[in-house]
Amino acid sequence: MSKNAAGMEPVRLAQPASAGLPDAVSSRLSALLGPRFSMKPADREHHGKGESYHAVQAPDAVCFAQSTEEVSEIVKICAAADVPVIPFGAGTSLEGHVSAVRGGVSLDLSRMTQIIAVRPEDLDVTVEAGVTRHQLNAYLRDTGLFFPVDPGGESTLGGMAATRASGTNAVRYGTMRENVVSLTVVLADGRVIRSGSRARKSSAGYDLTRLFVGSEGTLGIITELTVRLYGIPEMVSAAICPFGTIDEAVATVVGIIQCGIPIARVELMDTRTIQASNRYSGLSYQETPTLFMEFHGSAAGVAEQVAFARDMAEQNGALAFESADDADTRSRLWKARHDVHYAVQAMRPNGRVWSTDVCVPISALGPCIVETQKDVEAASFFISTVGHVGDGNFHLGLVIDPSSPAELAEANALNDRLVRRAIAFGGTSTGEHGVGTGKIKFMDLEHGAGVDVMRAIKAALDPQGILNPGKIIPEAQ
Amino acid sequence: MSKNAAGMEPVRLAQPASAGLPDAVSSRLSALLGPRFSMKPADREHHGKGESYHAVQAPDAVCFAQSTEEVSEIVKICAAADVPVIPFGAGTSLEGHVSAVRGGVSLDLSRMTQIIAVRPEDLDVTVEAGVTRHQLNAYLRDTGLFFPVDPGGESTLGGMAATRASGTNAVRYGTMRENVVSLTVVLADGRVIRSGSRARKSSAGYDLTRLFVGSEGTLGIITELTVRLYGIPEMVSAAICPFGTIDEAVATVVGIIQCGIPIARVELMDTRTIQASNRYSGLSYQETPTLFMEFHGSAAGVAEQVAFARDMAEQNGALAFESADDADTRSRLWKARHDVHYAVQAMRPNGRVWSTDVCVPISALGPCIVETQKDVEAASFFISTVGHVGDGNFHLGLVIDPSSPAELAEANALNDRLVRRAIAFGGTSTGEHGVGTGKIKFMDLEHGAGVDVMRAIKAALDPQGILNPGKIIPEAQ
Repeated sequence: MSKNAAGMEPVRLAQPASAGLPDAVSSRLSALLGPRFSMKPADREHHGKGESYHAVQAPDAVCFAQSTEEVSEIVKICAAADVPVIPFGAGTSLEGHVSAVRGGVSLDLSRMTQIIAVRPEDLDVTVEAGVTRHQLNAYLRDTGLFFPVDPGGESTLGGMAATRASGTNAVRYGTMRENVVSLTVVLADGRVIRSGSRARKSSAGYDLTRLFVGSEGTLGIITELTVRLYGIPEMVSAAICPFGTIDEAVATVVGIIQCGIPIARVELMDTRTIQASNRYSGLSYQETPTLFMEFHGSAAGVAEQVAFARDMAEQNGALAFESADDADTRSRLWKARHDVHYAVQAMRPNGRVWSTDVCVPISALGPCIVETQKDVEAASFFISTVGHVGDGNFHLGLVIDPSSPAELAEANALNDRLVRRAIAFGGTSTGEHGVGTGKIKFMDLEHGAGVDVMRAIKAALDPQGILNPGKIIPEAQ
Repeated sequence: MSKNAAGMEPVRLAQPASAGLPDAVSSRLSALLGPRFSMKPADREHHGKGESYHAVQAPDAVCFAQSTEEVSEIVKICAAADVPVIPFGAGTSLEGHVSAVRGGVSLDLSRMTQIIAVRPEDLDVTVEAGVTRHQLNAYLRDTGLFFPVDPGGESTLGGMAATRASGTNAVRYGTMRENVVSLTVVLADGRVIRSGSRARKSSAGYDLTRLFVGSEGTLGIITELTVRLYGIPEMVSAAICPFGTIDEAVATVVGIIQCGIPIARVELMDTRTIQASNRYSGLSYQETPTLFMEFHGSAAGVAEQVAFARDMAEQNGALAFESADDADTRSRLWKARHDVHYAVQAMRPNGRVWSTDVCVPISALGPCIVETQKDVEAASFFISTVGHVGDGNFHLGLVIDPSSPAELAEANALNDRLVRRAIAFGGTSTGEHGVGTGKIKFMDLEHGAGVDVMRAIKAALDPQGILNPGKIIPEAQ
């Protein structure tokens, strides 16, 4: 099978599990949307794939929605004919979330980019689901506020909410779980609800906001969201800190977290990853496990945090501790971390990065990473280890040849062991990427009978099973 | 009708909506629990009431459970005979949560007081549902850690999770929504699940933890919970700050919150409430709207926060700003706030406090309180205004004679107006007390079609409707 530009097998357009779109549906959608309804192969192919290694399937058609009302109409049309609806934001999913495993319509929300209301006095903003995090922060630039959740890709806010995304700032600012205030959601029958109020807290019934956050489009389609904003910190300081061993680096992080230091970011790169960065960016970092830190706050507060972190690092045998306040030097210190994606990708021409995503309690981070390093050392391909270690979340980047069944099998087995290890340590199969199709096989192990509860909720809110089918919940045995 | 010691109508033992407990159920429960199964009137009466003004109904029997397995067995026995099960913790509910509106069994979890595991390195603890917050903090005393969520009563952690409780510390540390890590829950058919892992974040499927938090025992019975802990701050500073008007006090709070100052507590008492405190405790506070603040952090951090708060208060016309670091003086500064419950209660012999609980976006706090003061001034009974104002949450304490239909009607109408006002301002009917039977009439207004989603979830997880029936969700029209 030939590979496409991304080095993966091409998106499959033939839909074995799909009967194709009924004519009545395509004509109704076409009448509703005009040129914003497409059955073109290029549109279908683009909407059937994320950024992952997963085999994917293209939808039968693509709808480019421009409003909540349109989303509602599209869902009603599809529901009347039992046609699956798969929400699509920026296509940055890593776990096959957008794959049309049972055919159907990709509902593209990326044209819903209105920023509806910024409320500096309430530190919140209401946006349409297609607004990306960079768009939002660019828009906010003059307000002194920012939105902190920062997954790697240029994701949409709607997609980030749907996958309960996070990123490097989560250790201080939380994930989408903590930062979504309320949602507008189109249900499986086309009804529209608003979950939650704009009050900071409420005890008024079931927490529908948190239920839809992380539901990956399987319970409803998020069309608008209100999220929390934060003041841009008065002072930002960055630091890098190399260690002789990965244990020492992790022990430093654990010490910082356990003492309640409100560190904004703390990222780990292992020796291999630093080597990859030096090679890719022509840098000369010491080739050893390294922490990248960032501190936010008042001048005095940041100075205190930096002093504490330096002290903790030295107690744990740090080889150096270099910090800086000015933007240029901060950027230089963090360059290896910023370039990591490209550096790892570049380790192998036509290689593809399979990113694992376990997250464990902080006390288990050291043991889990150390045990995992045995697998990393034994692998037949290059593996980077990069962690949002303040949250206990780390990613292995397995640089595989996706056309090699042997490498895919090896990667698969390694990931299986890693997930089982993380769950045994009290952790989770996915800290921030979501389940999609990729992690579905771990749900029973991770949740036990909790999966039955999820299945019951899914059946209650989407009895026809048309909303992003084949994601999150394994088929009942 | 004669009144009981609490000044309310007696708990009704006759159950118009209940056929009483079938013999098969009572004999099976008795065989399971021995003397921990009770049909004594005193036990039934105690378990049919919370601390509220609501008319309440006693259960047909009380089961004192000692383990998750027992809770599961009790639920199975009740489910087999369609007998309602009403979880009971410390009986501190303010919204009729424990009322056996359709008869059935009160499932008392207060004997499940084991602290299962404290994990200082992970800043979490696993407890049985009957542990109270004071018990937990007493147990933690030597660890340097504490659990911050502090509703007024000596509530159980299970009850606090079930009602999504909060308190004065929520502005900095969050509510039960943010502080529950995972739960053990007995489902309506007796199955036991564990929701969530101990990882700080996860994207692995629906957020069942957040779904059960705030579900008031209507979806499952929480038997164990893991909650977050925090290091006891190095430095604590308290301040009080009187203002000429309530607007100035609120503007000060809004300024502090909007600037992201991590204030730990900020409480408002209005003039009437200060007067009540002076009278009750023989104090001589200036009788004017007053803020009570507390700051947690490092010495330098707290000094910075206090300086900022003082500055903000002065800009908004504060009449004074007195702060202190030592425990005795802090306690003296806060005395009026600590005594407020008794001071308000004492305004009227045999009076009963009806506590309202709206919460609005912070920008609406000033207008909402100011509009509400017109109602307060016009009322025929004493009303205190006390607010967790950093969250936009405030309570009116209506000191009513609960045997007076006229006063009950007046209070009811005032509360209705208040709730509608808060919802119109983008807020909620209940910031921290929950829905129970008391707020059920506002759910349609607050959530619209979201109530249908809640109803569908309820039907999916409790198809027989045996779990705390008659709470949260209004009967379908």
